[in-house]
Amino acid sequence: MQMPAPNPVTLAKKAQLTERLTAALGKDGVIAEDIALKAYECDALTAYRCPPMLALLPRTTAEVAAALKICHEMNVPVVPRGSGTSLAGGAMPTADSVILGVSRMNAVLETDFASRVIRVQTGRTNLSVTGAVEGEGFFYAPDPSSQLACAIAGNIAMNSGGAHCLKYGVTTNNLMGVTMVMMDGEIVEIGGAHLDAGGLDLLGLICGSEGQLGVVTEATLRILHKPEGARPVLIGFDSNEVAGACVSDIIKAGILPVAIEFMDRMLIGVCEDYARAGYPDCEALLIVEVEGSEAEIEHQLGLIHEIAKQHNPVEFRKATSADEAGRIWAGRKAAFSAIGKVSDYMCLDGTIPVSQLPYVLKRIGEMSKTYGLAVGNVFHAGDGNMHPLILYDANKPGDLEICEAFGAEVLKLCVEVGGCLTGEHGVGIEKRDLMLDQFAPDDLDMQMAVKDVFDPKWLLNPAKVFPLASSEARRIAAE
Amino acid sequence: MQMPAPNPVTLAKKAQLTERLTAALGKDGVIAEDIALKAYECDALTAYRCPPMLALLPRTTAEVAAALKICHEMNVPVVPRGSGTSLAGGAMPTADSVILGVSRMNAVLETDFASRVIRVQTGRTNLSVTGAVEGEGFFYAPDPSSQLACAIAGNIAMNSGGAHCLKYGVTTNNLMGVTMVMMDGEIVEIGGAHLDAGGLDLLGLICGSEGQLGVVTEATLRILHKPEGARPVLIGFDSNEVAGACVSDIIKAGILPVAIEFMDRMLIGVCEDYARAGYPDCEALLIVEVEGSEAEIEHQLGLIHEIAKQHNPVEFRKATSADEAGRIWAGRKAAFSAIGKVSDYMCLDGTIPVSQLPYVLKRIGEMSKTYGLAVGNVFHAGDGNMHPLILYDANKPGDLEICEAFGAEVLKLCVEVGGCLTGEHGVGIEKRDLMLDQFAPDDLDMQMAVKDVFDPKWLLNPAKVFPLASSEARRIAAE
Repeated sequence: MQMPAPNPVTLAKKAQLTERLTAALGKDGVIAEDIALKAYECDALTAYRCPPMLALLPRTTAEVAAALKICHEMNVPVVPRGSGTSLAGGAMPTADSVILGVSRMNAVLETDFASRVIRVQTGRTNLSVTGAVEGEGFFYAPDPSSQLACAIAGNIAMNSGGAHCLKYGVTTNNLMGVTMVMMDGEIVEIGGAHLDAGGLDLLGLICGSEGQLGVVTEATLRILHKPEGARPVLIGFDSNEVAGACVSDIIKAGILPVAIEFMDRMLIGVCEDYARAGYPDCEALLIVEVEGSEAEIEHQLGLIHEIAKQHNPVEFRKATSADEAGRIWAGRKAAFSAIGKVSDYMCLDGTIPVSQLPYVLKRIGEMSKTYGLAVGNVFHAGDGNMHPLILYDANKPGDLEICEAFGAEVLKLCVEVGGCLTGEHGVGIEKRDLMLDQFAPDDLDMQMAVKDVFDPKWLLNPAKVFPLASSEARRIAAE
Repeated sequence: MQMPAPNPVTLAKKAQLTERLTAALGKDGVIAEDIALKAYECDALTAYRCPPMLALLPRTTAEVAAALKICHEMNVPVVPRGSGTSLAGGAMPTADSVILGVSRMNAVLETDFASRVIRVQTGRTNLSVTGAVEGEGFFYAPDPSSQLACAIAGNIAMNSGGAHCLKYGVTTNNLMGVTMVMMDGEIVEIGGAHLDAGGLDLLGLICGSEGQLGVVTEATLRILHKPEGARPVLIGFDSNEVAGACVSDIIKAGILPVAIEFMDRMLIGVCEDYARAGYPDCEALLIVEVEGSEAEIEHQLGLIHEIAKQHNPVEFRKATSADEAGRIWAGRKAAFSAIGKVSDYMCLDGTIPVSQLPYVLKRIGEMSKTYGLAVGNVFHAGDGNMHPLILYDANKPGDLEICEAFGAEVLKLCVEVGGCLTGEHGVGIEKRDLMLDQFAPDDLDMQMAVKDVFDPKWLLNPAKVFPLASSEARRIAAE
């Protein structure tokens, strides 16, 4: 992965920057030692690494504003970071940049159950937002796999989804307002505990903008009441295409399960070996979860059974207890750990119209033969958010490059059938050059012109989202 | 309402413009006669009127593009128009502008039930979107009161809501993608039948942008499966505050009815006189509708009954038949016609956090005494979207001005308690100067800088959304 040549940073400039930032954040708010900076050299896309010049750990919005103001005055690029769980390199530093981590800012600022909102500092982890409201029977719906670790800041930056987003929507559908610090240190309030405000909807623009427009330090989030109960069913099929067609038919019939997860033969085997979940020996498996009262659950599972029968399932297993439900989910939840044990892999994040699932699965199978690399499929099928895992050997010269080419072709296929490059992981550094397959140059110019408005010096989260040549040209022009 | 002095249009320029547009759209695509232009002199905010220079009725996206290109070249402002049902003057012309109406563009382009989407031309009316899919058991959720007439184009421009948006969200939560024509005639595709794309989320920005950024000609909309059944309950209270507190408690308990509508004594009386709905004689009335299977409906109504009892309702009436359900809704649905029969009125659209309902209702009552004008309340209480109706006498000199001052104070109160100026009607010309109460000058500058990117000449939908002095300054600077 090519990165831009860093602006040379003189020792004098680094010393002055460190001194000013230390005055603003205190000694324990600034990390400058090389050994400590190693912790920030990558996020969860560990294939690419580069330590930043400094890392900052502010405690308040005012401290974030002070730090950004200093960096703005000294023309230092800033990489905002939540918990660093990005799979797309969204929080990867450049050598001349400063990491601004919000992990210490994790307080609950307000809960208002009548308005169904909670206001938190954005360093708070996704799961602990639910933790703060579940005593009253509420929860926060978006549930990325990394929810134990990932921060709301990163969820907002990437517009994160999760298994339950089929029913509840992704982050943008559950975000009501933010406090954001602009690159020049100005603090702005956007949205709030109310419906869409007048004027341009900057909140919609900011959600999913990958740290390109500002640093979000506080967020007002929609909370929902927990359903009475939930139950998964496991359905096995003798081909990927048939399983994909069954997903289409469930949605077409107007049933909206809370989750429809898909696994193919490779993942079934790998997860079964790892988690002993008791999965059947078959080509493809769906886990469909429905929720509500007991009567409602039974009714929905009955309809799903009728639809599944028309696709000749090799197995249809309803969970009848919490223990059985746990076993059905155990394999799926362990999927990424399990596959990581057997091979290096690249996880894609293409998203397609659900009706295209059978065709796309077939084409991915054909490509796997052409490229000579195995591929496993495990994903949120109900909303068409695919996560093909391409297996490769990091120690075999050339294998990563073949894998990258294969991945790019899959993502182009997603665009071709009316889908897009990314569902919930974001573009980051990983897919920035593929953006030209999704967008015409004029479209990208328009997006970059919007960035110009928020960050005219192009200092925020450099070298990401836009094709590298384009963003570098903008940055240089702004100097 | 002050409007900008129109740029003087010479007869020669008008003749040339008419000739070029007629060549592009055909003779029946261009309306130039004064008598015919009267139809376009206002929208549903009928207090303000001004005929446009011309009106255009294109049939395709290509024709819209051709028309905009010509207007762009000739520096002619363009006012996009759906069905003209805006309550905020969102489609009001200026004398030097051209109306671009999309009413002829009303085709269904594609339905895809497995992907839960429909693609339509945006001149299609809201209700006829549901009409196109209900045969398969689906519906389009946002339901403005004007849904029989209002166009999807206007719904997108205003981010429209409706009674059922408590459960299903407003337009932005149900919009997947658009085809939009830029002011210079370029056609762009944004979003599609898939989750959020990479890069900046321009779709979120465009929804609710009131025709400031481009003309949306086609839209991909999320469709949902119809619930098994639905049932309203009517609950009467002896004060507005107690009714407001009951709404808070229902939401706080985690029940999410599909609608919670509120009416105060004035509206109860006016609607009863008009529709003979059998409403009780009381201070405030809630209509709460729940949906699902019969068992689920009974369960939810049971919980609502328990909560209501704690607020000593003077009446709790469950509908037990379709006929009774119809009667409960009849009065509410007739509210705007009913009040229009008895008085001139101004309909506000402030939105607040639900927990602030009792306080805001009390303050509006106090203001009503101070200003000496009666006020009626009828609104979507569950999501805090208030529609206070201030009654005045259009024939009494000074009464409209007192009404405007009263309205402005109510909207400022909404902002003060953490809400905003508009929930679903938009800013239009009506609230543009109040934007300074919601936003700091820097915030508005930021929004206007984003508009600069899309419409650098400031030709699209002039004199709206932003304070008039600011938008005029931008327009003149761009000349």
